[in-house]
Amino acid sequence: MIELTLIGIGTGDPGHLTQAAVAAMNDADLILIPLKGAEKSDLAGLRRQLCDAVIAAPGPRIAEFLLPVRDAAAPDYRAGVEEWHDAIAAAWLAEIRAHLDGAGRVALLVWGDPSLYDSTLRIAERLGRVLPVATRVVPGITAIQALCAAHAIPLNEIGAPVTITTGRRLRAGGWPAGSDRLVVMLDGDCAFAGLDPDGVEIWWGAFLGMKEQILLAGPLAEAGPDILATRQAARARHGWIMDIYLLHRAPRQRVDPAA
Amino acid sequence: MIELTLIGIGTGDPGHLTQAAVAAMNDADLILIPLKGAEKSDLAGLRRQLCDAVIAAPGPRIAEFLLPVRDAAAPDYRAGVEEWHDAIAAAWLAEIRAHLDGAGRVALLVWGDPSLYDSTLRIAERLGRVLPVATRVVPGITAIQALCAAHAIPLNEIGAPVTITTGRRLRAGGWPAGSDRLVVMLDGDCAFAGLDPDGVEIWWGAFLGMKEQILLAGPLAEAGPDILATRQAARARHGWIMDIYLLHRAPRQRVDPAA
Repeated sequence: MIELTLIGIGTGDPGHLTQAAVAAMNDADLILIPLKGAEKSDLAGLRRQLCDAVIAAPGPRIAEFLLPVRDAAAPDYRAGVEEWHDAIAAAWLAEIRAHLDGAGRVALLVWGDPSLYDSTLRIAERLGRVLPVATRVVPGITAIQALCAAHAIPLNEIGAPVTITTGRRLRAGGWPAGSDRLVVMLDGDCAFAGLDPDGVEIWWGAFLGMKEQILLAGPLAEAGPDILATRQAARARHGWIMDIYLLHRAPRQRVDPAA
Repeated sequence: MIELTLIGIGTGDPGHLTQAAVAAMNDADLILIPLKGAEKSDLAGLRRQLCDAVIAAPGPRIAEFLLPVRDAAAPDYRAGVEEWHDAIAAAWLAEIRAHLDGAGRVALLVWGDPSLYDSTLRIAERLGRVLPVATRVVPGITAIQALCAAHAIPLNEIGAPVTITTGRRLRAGGWPAGSDRLVVMLDGDCAFAGLDPDGVEIWWGAFLGMKEQILLAGPLAEAGPDILATRQAARARHGWIMDIYLLHRAPRQRVDPAA
């Protein structure tokens, strides 16, 4: 039996690691670290640094493996993602077979939290189709908490809802019904720039929790162009960027027909 | 100057504490612990236990104070909340004046994370009106992460949105537009029981991360009545309950008029 532990590690600040995460990292027999190619190689380096910072000698074996690349040209987006997840599960399986003799504790260090816009749970399910696997999740600090903490703001207005969505959705569908407060993730194209900025505020953060952290906030009409320029410059400087933002719009005025 | 640190402590599992939280607890001069009266007294006890578990001697002074009670009979809900927050800020101020000589590091241990359905940031803002205060937030594991981790499920479907809302909203307005996946918090009255259960799944958890943790999940039609009964019994046994749930509904069928 393979015990697979998916460990949320927060957004890059070693202080985000929970005590349960540190314990699970130390208790593992094997930690798998994906290498994503040159552009995001800092992330593998950061996972390595977290291991170095909290694992007591001798510690588990640490195996780096080349993360398969998603076929972005696949005509069917969903089918492309499914194939990609199959390929990652196969890469895990190869490492597990190479390093463990059919049983043991395998850990994966998941950016943020394994529940939020992350594929690791879905890949673990695939692994479970070919090996007996017991999966356990150690929750981690998400980019949402890191954003709100860095700005020292609440996620929600008192008693009001919040919707978490993606840049793709916001671009395609505009501001979704039902919430005046939106968290936007996975947005490589600054979908906020396509919104009517009237009455909208934004709180933006990049590299949250890392020494490169950048924060900007304000009315979207003023802060939006700043964020576009800052984001472009930071991405050029680092070769990659991870960012997230929270939007709030003033509740729409109700027009009183009798007025 | 008062340095006020709001520390997210997760949902009761000491393993939820982050390394930053442990450091901030040890670095404080004064930790304020609210006493909420008999019904929720376990929570003050749990905060005390967390302090005992991670603070090195001699450690900060720990001051317990009686949390003012919200006037639930106030005719205006929002005004009642505002008055209540004023009263809590006054209680903090009295403790700070009693224990510190105008300067120092004050910490508050916030259930879950200070950004999510929590008043501590708003109360800190009030304190800042009468004292020079620098507020810092240490993010914590929310009940949302704890719920998903315990069930080992993703919060979102691939690329799809999630709405976080309250029991009050769900009861008053039904399933909100825009998301097929809902997290419901602050629900003392099981608002899920008022939904049409057709095509809806629920993942429920109470006392997440604590030894009393209870998990139930399944199609709402079958799991709903179980959850109602289990929740009622657990609440009677413990005198209080903290719970949360995730709902998913099958995307509504599009009727093809040509078919």
